[in-house]
Amino acid sequence: MDNVNLKQLAKELNLSASTISRALRDSHEISQETKDRVKALATKLGFQPNPHASSLRQSKSKTIAVIIPEIENNFFSQVMNGIEDVAQQKSYHVLIYLTHEDEKREKDILNVLRNGRVDGLMISISNTTTSFEHLEAYRVAEVPLVFFDRVCESIDAPRITTDDAEAAFKATEHLVKMGCRKIAFLSMADGLSISSRRRSGYLKALAKSGLEENEITMAGGTDDESNRRAIRELLTTQAPDAIFAAVEKMAINTYQVCQELKIDIPEKLKVVSFSNLAAAALFDPPLSTIVQPAYEIGKEAATILFKLIEKRVLLPNEKKVTFPSHLVERKSTSK
Amino acid sequence: MDNVNLKQLAKELNLSASTISRALRDSHEISQETKDRVKALATKLGFQPNPHASSLRQSKSKTIAVIIPEIENNFFSQVMNGIEDVAQQKSYHVLIYLTHEDEKREKDILNVLRNGRVDGLMISISNTTTSFEHLEAYRVAEVPLVFFDRVCESIDAPRITTDDAEAAFKATEHLVKMGCRKIAFLSMADGLSISSRRRSGYLKALAKSGLEENEITMAGGTDDESNRRAIRELLTTQAPDAIFAAVEKMAINTYQVCQELKIDIPEKLKVVSFSNLAAAALFDPPLSTIVQPAYEIGKEAATILFKLIEKRVLLPNEKKVTFPSHLVERKSTSK
Repeated sequence: MDNVNLKQLAKELNLSASTISRALRDSHEISQETKDRVKALATKLGFQPNPHASSLRQSKSKTIAVIIPEIENNFFSQVMNGIEDVAQQKSYHVLIYLTHEDEKREKDILNVLRNGRVDGLMISISNTTTSFEHLEAYRVAEVPLVFFDRVCESIDAPRITTDDAEAAFKATEHLVKMGCRKIAFLSMADGLSISSRRRSGYLKALAKSGLEENEITMAGGTDDESNRRAIRELLTTQAPDAIFAAVEKMAINTYQVCQELKIDIPEKLKVVSFSNLAAAALFDPPLSTIVQPAYEIGKEAATILFKLIEKRVLLPNEKKVTFPSHLVERKSTSK
Repeated sequence: MDNVNLKQLAKELNLSASTISRALRDSHEISQETKDRVKALATKLGFQPNPHASSLRQSKSKTIAVIIPEIENNFFSQVMNGIEDVAQQKSYHVLIYLTHEDEKREKDILNVLRNGRVDGLMISISNTTTSFEHLEAYRVAEVPLVFFDRVCESIDAPRITTDDAEAAFKATEHLVKMGCRKIAFLSMADGLSISSRRRSGYLKALAKSGLEENEITMAGGTDDESNRRAIRELLTTQAPDAIFAAVEKMAINTYQVCQELKIDIPEKLKVVSFSNLAAAALFDPPLSTIVQPAYEIGKEAATILFKLIEKRVLLPNEKKVTFPSHLVERKSTSK
């Protein structure tokens, strides 16, 4: 018997549909005996309440949304895992939206999420996003909102990140310790706070070792071919002795150029990168990485979002959570 | 002005809420002039219809669900990309559910998706799933359903797959051509049709070269440590000259064991694997792969699902779509 509805349960038990509905919601207006009869039959017939009717009645959609730039990236797929685990425990549904690093797409997505489709949302913003009214509108509308990884610092909402500046500092110091003097910092062309935090850690480490004058920074984009062209140019004209990639994509593009130009890593060029790629250890040579606790970030972002949805008070340290990343030293940065 | 609702629009224009609602739905009962006035104000105030009220009225949720075993896997994340692109074009929302290869979790997810939360669903089944009533229930309830990659052949629903047997045949033949005589086939312990199709391609290629007697098959699981132990055992006791991994995980575990035991790939052991990992070319040595057109599979599965949702008739060749995979030969299988 499929698609059993309230009316059929009511008819079968000779009760009104409203009594059935209240019995299933454990209303104090209904006797325990009736509740038991209703629930037993509902279970037997496989009754599931109509989600749209429940949502309309309770003003709850039992759904949260996750907006991320891309999914073909181990960091974001591990974050999704953490979010999904918490949502399943809460019996919530998870909507996923990909912006593909497109500000317009991000704004369109936020626009259709207004008016109750979701009880809350989590977002890691696109690297082309430059204005934030679409996010500000959510804060004003009091829809629970949590930022993770790529956050917007001007909006008052919880932010879950890693210690980007410290991790970048440590990675750069590691390169200096391995004998590098001309370290190039490769990031994406964007205005994200995450990128400037990583860059500041790099600059701080250079300054500490008196290498300020050797600063080399380069910003890439989403197109691999243009990135490789720019890296080829950088390696031939500036001859850095190390690459510190703020994003995995730039490290992969660097490896490809080195393969092509037969530049030996780590003898001629050392490479370290922010990356959650499990297979980094199988690279030729194994790639040193700064690994972010992606699963934990997703889990924490979802946990805090549910606190907001349940109107519980956040502790001061839950408004800005910073997880430590860790450096995994491998052959690509060895002496 | 946030969360503008029908009533506020009605008050502002001195019309009934029902007139506003019908005007926004382009009802023929409302004059063009009124429709224009209503739509102009709705746009100005940023009105978005309550999705649950619309869903209840139209019996449409504008939502589809995707159920996959895991997301930390390039194949499934590329499939998600394809699905999401089609859904965005259709202005649909996408719910994502991860089974983590757990039959019970898969059944629980399907159970809560009954009764109209979604207009249709796409699934790639878990490798521990052995009975299919939960899927059969969907077919009976006439909720549009499409299988992809890991399909259930006993249920009458469209299936999008790749030419697994042919691709496995080609990969095995390639190993034979490279001089291998003792090729081990490493898959996952499951009862999935996809695994038996891949195995049949392997066996057919062995038979063609008179190597039936040299068949070696091994089935792994989700735990890396146990897989590596089994692979170590296999390499030391049976001494195969090649590994054909039906899943990427087993190839990665093989590389790790070879690193540890200092077994040279491809000199002592050749390795080829089904894998959509872009970084396979950067492995030491670069890994030969059978690449599935994952993005296209996702796009096609979603396109066919929308045809079903829109009650359009499927062409006979849309009920069972098979995309070709292709073999990328790299150093791990070279002579």
